[in-house]
Amino acid sequence: MYKQNHLTNVRVVLSHTSHPGNIGAAARAMKTMGLHHLYLINPRYFPDPQASAMAAGADDILQNAVVCGSIDEALQGVALTVGMTARLRDISNQVMMPREAMPRVLQQAATQPVALLFGTEMSGLTNEEVSRAQLLVNIPANPDFSSLNLAAAVQVMAYEIMLASQSYSPVTQPTPAAAHEQVEGFLAHLEKTLLEIGFFTTQNPARMMQRLRRLYARARLETDEINILRGILSVTSEYNARLKTRYQQEKDV
Amino acid sequence: MYKQNHLTNVRVVLSHTSHPGNIGAAARAMKTMGLHHLYLINPRYFPDPQASAMAAGADDILQNAVVCGSIDEALQGVALTVGMTARLRDISNQVMMPREAMPRVLQQAATQPVALLFGTEMSGLTNEEVSRAQLLVNIPANPDFSSLNLAAAVQVMAYEIMLASQSYSPVTQPTPAAAHEQVEGFLAHLEKTLLEIGFFTTQNPARMMQRLRRLYARARLETDEINILRGILSVTSEYNARLKTRYQQEKDV
Repeated sequence: MYKQNHLTNVRVVLSHTSHPGNIGAAARAMKTMGLHHLYLINPRYFPDPQASAMAAGADDILQNAVVCGSIDEALQGVALTVGMTARLRDISNQVMMPREAMPRVLQQAATQPVALLFGTEMSGLTNEEVSRAQLLVNIPANPDFSSLNLAAAVQVMAYEIMLASQSYSPVTQPTPAAAHEQVEGFLAHLEKTLLEIGFFTTQNPARMMQRLRRLYARARLETDEINILRGILSVTSEYNARLKTRYQQEKDV
Repeated sequence: MYKQNHLTNVRVVLSHTSHPGNIGAAARAMKTMGLHHLYLINPRYFPDPQASAMAAGADDILQNAVVCGSIDEALQGVALTVGMTARLRDISNQVMMPREAMPRVLQQAATQPVALLFGTEMSGLTNEEVSRAQLLVNIPANPDFSSLNLAAAVQVMAYEIMLASQSYSPVTQPTPAAAHEQVEGFLAHLEKTLLEIGFFTTQNPARMMQRLRRLYARARLETDEINILRGILSVTSEYNARLKTRYQQEKDV
């Protein structure tokens, strides 16, 4: 079924969850809305009887949950990562409300995996995790008490996705976005190259990489484009290497 | 603030809740969306440490919660009762999706109390409880696994109300609907009168009252109309009493 595809391509990623009950409750929330793929990054306790108790019939989701050692492992193959945030961050990522974000989520999920990324109960996503997201979503809430329970936030997002999928009709061809690991491979290559060519001597490398990450997150790189960019980086390195060699030779002469 | 009025007039009513943790989680869900009035009909355990633990900062809502001995007590003063149902019932009540129902909920809440009525974890609302609602709402869900956790359902409804209240602008003057106890007073009067006049001798009284309840629920009775209808009932009783007296006198003659 076409609509089912959207939901099949959505994975829920919970990072460093403290309370196993929340994992179970999140699984139940997912299943009520037709979502099935749960990824857990270093959960404190899992599997756990409390998780099973709170799943209340969504045990299949817990049994099939993928436990990962890192965020990059959890986002393997993902073309769009939606980071959930309880606050409007100072960095200039675009923050949308759930309903606003749904057309884009569904457009991507029609053909490629999409991840909804949830941080810990106490402090949400780390800056490093946020930097992996192309889109940030904030559930509107009481400004004096804005902290939704983790599973409640999963419930709201899953509810919005299911509702949107029921009424969704694609208007434009989705862009074949590059997978998470391709983007990360490019960014690592970029950082290495910038270091090689001495770009960081006058810059704060971490800060600069954050800015570049945001730029490329907005651009929604395609696989072909990543190949082109990495080609440029390779040539840059080679050119730099040739220059060094020639300089060395001239000095030796 | 005008918008705040809407939320202040919304009460969440939980009937015969089994697990105190769900009461606490529901309080938290309410507070994140700016709802504050919690009513509990015969909760199995309350107050309870589990409720406080799950409230996670929404203790004020638990402390101010009103524990009631009956549904009519919990609906005192309420002008619109929204019954939450996980299934599409055989009886012909109108069932709406949350988003569809919001304009009506907000229109009423602008001036009068509205109740969101949630049944037990295991079996939802009883038929008697459903009969107290003027509107039924079903949260759309996976047909193979449609049972949302109680607090998760509260979260979804509270989220929809808060979102709707942010964008709500009244288009028509809200109808000054009669309060719950006025409607119940009329229905009790009606039943008594129908019994008196012998209407039930060929009818199943409970079934007939259900049908009449639905009819008047759709009509959204105003206070003046209730006074008129009860006037009719009084006159009917008196007429019936006079007839009886005359019949008795004629027999005695």
